[in-house]
Amino acid sequence: MTFSYVSHLYCPKCEAKHSAQAAVQLCSCSSPLLVRYRLEELKSSLDRSELAARTERSLWRYHELLPVERADNVVTLGEGITPLLRMPKLGSGMGIPQLLMKDEGITPTGSFKARGAAVGVSKAKELGVRELAMPTNGNAGAAWALYAARAGIRATVVMPTDAPEITRKECAAAGARLYLVDGLISDAGKIVAQAIAEEGLYDASTLKEPYRIEGKKTMGLEIAEQLNWRLPDVILYPTGGGVGLIGIFKAFQELQALGWVQGKLPRLVAVQAEGCAPIVQAWKEKKTESTFWPASSTVAFGINVPKALGDFLVLDALYRTDGCAVAVDDRTLLREQLRIAGEEGAFVCPEGAAAFAAARLLRSSGWIREEETVVVLNTGSGVKYPNTVQASPPVLQPGERLTGRGETWLRPDDHASGQERLPLT
Amino acid sequence: MTFSYVSHLYCPKCEAKHSAQAAVQLCSCSSPLLVRYRLEELKSSLDRSELAARTERSLWRYHELLPVERADNVVTLGEGITPLLRMPKLGSGMGIPQLLMKDEGITPTGSFKARGAAVGVSKAKELGVRELAMPTNGNAGAAWALYAARAGIRATVVMPTDAPEITRKECAAAGARLYLVDGLISDAGKIVAQAIAEEGLYDASTLKEPYRIEGKKTMGLEIAEQLNWRLPDVILYPTGGGVGLIGIFKAFQELQALGWVQGKLPRLVAVQAEGCAPIVQAWKEKKTESTFWPASSTVAFGINVPKALGDFLVLDALYRTDGCAVAVDDRTLLREQLRIAGEEGAFVCPEGAAAFAAARLLRSSGWIREEETVVVLNTGSGVKYPNTVQASPPVLQPGERLTGRGETWLRPDDHASGQERLPLT
Repeated sequence: MTFSYVSHLYCPKCEAKHSAQAAVQLCSCSSPLLVRYRLEELKSSLDRSELAARTERSLWRYHELLPVERADNVVTLGEGITPLLRMPKLGSGMGIPQLLMKDEGITPTGSFKARGAAVGVSKAKELGVRELAMPTNGNAGAAWALYAARAGIRATVVMPTDAPEITRKECAAAGARLYLVDGLISDAGKIVAQAIAEEGLYDASTLKEPYRIEGKKTMGLEIAEQLNWRLPDVILYPTGGGVGLIGIFKAFQELQALGWVQGKLPRLVAVQAEGCAPIVQAWKEKKTESTFWPASSTVAFGINVPKALGDFLVLDALYRTDGCAVAVDDRTLLREQLRIAGEEGAFVCPEGAAAFAAARLLRSSGWIREEETVVVLNTGSGVKYPNTVQASPPVLQPGERLTGRGETWLRPDDHASGQERLPLT
Repeated sequence: MTFSYVSHLYCPKCEAKHSAQAAVQLCSCSSPLLVRYRLEELKSSLDRSELAARTERSLWRYHELLPVERADNVVTLGEGITPLLRMPKLGSGMGIPQLLMKDEGITPTGSFKARGAAVGVSKAKELGVRELAMPTNGNAGAAWALYAARAGIRATVVMPTDAPEITRKECAAAGARLYLVDGLISDAGKIVAQAIAEEGLYDASTLKEPYRIEGKKTMGLEIAEQLNWRLPDVILYPTGGGVGLIGIFKAFQELQALGWVQGKLPRLVAVQAEGCAPIVQAWKEKKTESTFWPASSTVAFGINVPKALGDFLVLDALYRTDGCAVAVDDRTLLREQLRIAGEEGAFVCPEGAAAFAAARLLRSSGWIREEETVVVLNTGSGVKYPNTVQASPPVLQPGERLTGRGETWLRPDDHASGQERLPLT
C-alpha cells in the first residue's frame, strides 16, 4: 500500500521543481515551495467513501495526501479531527442560522499549530533533520518544541516577550533552546536567520519549509469530510502568516482534482486585527503582495504578523474564491469572545473571536447572506490567553454565605481594552 | 430508534430505586445514586461491531449507554474520543514497553471534566433544571459553567482561591456567578450546600447528581473500543473525588454484561499526592471508607480532595479489581511532568504526571510487570497549570545574536518544589 502520494515540490512563482526527498527550504527564486501529489494516480485507487470506514481519528487518516512516505516516521500526539460545532444562539444573533465553528482549541498544545508541527516535524524526521530553529508568536513554537521533543529533534525557538506566557512554559517543558526578543516576530525571524546561517540548523520558519502547510491543509480536508463533501459557502480564518488559509485553499483544489468535491469553492475570508492588517490593506488596494505594517499591535497576538512571506498566496486565494479581507478592532473582538463563551459555552482564543466578529460585520454589510453556511476557524483555546478575560470574584471565608443572588452574577470589571460584560440572552 | 437504554437510578448502599425522569440528588440514605441501564435489551439490539461504523466523533457515539433520552437535549462541544497514545521512550525508561496515555487534555475546556459536564448538563437540561450550583477545585467548575452557558442554564460556582487561575477566567467568560473561598473544596462545598438550601438550586456537586459519572464512564468505553475490546492489564487514575475511576469501573461492568469484553478486568490504581492521600491510607488499612485528610496540600490541585463522597465506591473498585492505591510526592510528580514533555512531547497536568510517576513506582516494586499493557489517564492539559513549570529564557534586543549554543539549551532554574531539568534521552 502506498502511504503517501507525494510527488515533488514546486515553486508557485517560477515553476521550478524540487525533490521532496531532500531537506529543501525556499526556492532558488526565494519563493516558498508547495507540495504536489500524484492526484491522478490516487484518484484511481482511493474513493472518498473508503475514508468513512477508517477508524484513525487524527489527521493521519488523510495520509495519502500528506508528504510523509513511511508510516513509522509519523510523529503524532493525536492531532486533528477537531469538532465542527453548530453555534445556533450566536448565529441567530448575527443573522447566520447556519453558523459553524471548527474548534482548533481541542488539539494537542491547544492550538491549530499542532497540525503544522505534526506534519512538519514528521517530515523533518524522515529527512534526517536533527536540529531545527524557528521564530514564533508563541503557539507555533510551543507546538514545534513539543513535537520535536517527541521526535528526538532539538528545537531552537525565538519569540517576542509579549507572546502568550504559557507558550514559554511549553517550550521549556519540552527542553527547547528558548529565547525571547524585545520586539516582534519579524525581529525574531532575523535572529533565527542569523543562527541558521551560523549553525546550519533546519529552518522551520513559516513557509521556509514546505510541509507545515500540508498539516494545516487537513483543516480543509476535515471540513469537507465533516460536511459530507458539500463545502460551505464562506470560511473565515484569522490571518497572521496565513498558512492555514493557504492550506485550506490547497486542500480544496486537491479535492477538486480528485473529484471528491464539486462546484464553486467557499469564499475565503482573511480576518486581521485593525492594529496589524497588511493583508486587508493589500486586498483593498487589489495588490498581489502586502506591505510591512509598521508598529503593529493587537491583543490577538497570533495574528500580529506585519509582513507574511506567503502574503501573495493568501491574496491569490482570496481573489480566486471571490473572498475578502476584514479587520476587526481589539475592543470588538474581546466583546465577541465573551459573547461566544456566554452564549455557546466555547472559550475561544482572541484570534478566533476576531473571525466571529468579522462574520458579524460581513453579515451586517450583506456580504454574507442569511441562507449561507459559514464556517469560522477558532485557531486555539482561550485558556492560553488568560489576560483577555478579567475576573474579580468576591472572596469568602469558610463558613460565610453567598451574598445576594441578583447582584452577584459576575460582571467582570471593564477590561483593559474597554469591553463590558455582555448579558446572556 | 431508542436513543438511551436508561432504566432507573439505584442506591449502591441501601438498594433503593429512584426515577431517572426526575431531578433526584442523593438517596434518602445519603448515598450517591448510580444509573442502571436495560443492558439485556441493549445486548440483543446492538452489536459492538456496529459501533465501528459510527462516524460520531464524540462521547455521544455511546448514546445508548448514556442517560439522556432525547437527542435534542444533548449539549455538546465535541468532547471525548481523546487519543490513546503510545509512550515508547517514557515506557522504555520505566520498564513498561506497553505504556499508553489516554490524553484528556485534548477536549473542550482542556480537562476530562468536560465529559461529566457534557452529560450532567445535558441531563439537567432534560430534567428542566434552570439553575445549578457546585463547589470545585477549578476545572469542573469551568467545564460546568461553560456547558451550562451553552444549555442556557445559570451556574453558581465556588472554588478555593488556590484553584488554577485560568478556571476563574473560564467561569467569568461563561457568565457564571463565581465566588472564591479562602479554604479548600470542602469549605466551598459547605457554602454551596447552604446556598442550595436557601435558593433551591440544582446541586451539581460531585456525586450529588448521578449523571456526571456517566460522562466520565465514557473514558472506560473508549479505552475498550480503542484497544479493540481487549482491556489493558492496569489503569492508573489520579484520584481526587474519584468519579473517573468509579466511572471506568462501571463502564467495564456494563461492557461485561453486554458481552462486549471478556475476562479479568484491569487492575485499577488510585493515584494521590502525598499531601492528600485519604484513599491511599484507607486502602492500606483495608478500610471501606476514607477519613478526612487534615491540612491537605499538593501542587496537583485537582486531587486535593480531603474526603470524597464516593470514597467507598473507589475503594470497592480497587478491591474488586485487585488494584491498589499509591501516593506520590510533589517533587517526584513535577519531575515526571518535565520528563514526559521532554521525552514524549506531551505537556500533561500535574495530576496526570502523578499517575505516570505512580506507574514508575509500581514497576520498580514489581507490582506492574514488564509485559503488561498499562494505560495512564492524563486528566488535563498542562497549559492550565502554568505555575508548575519555570522558564527564564534570555531576552535579546532586535539585531542581537543567539548566545553560544551548547550552554543555552534551556535548563529552568530549580523549581519552587525543587525539581531539576532532566536531560533529553
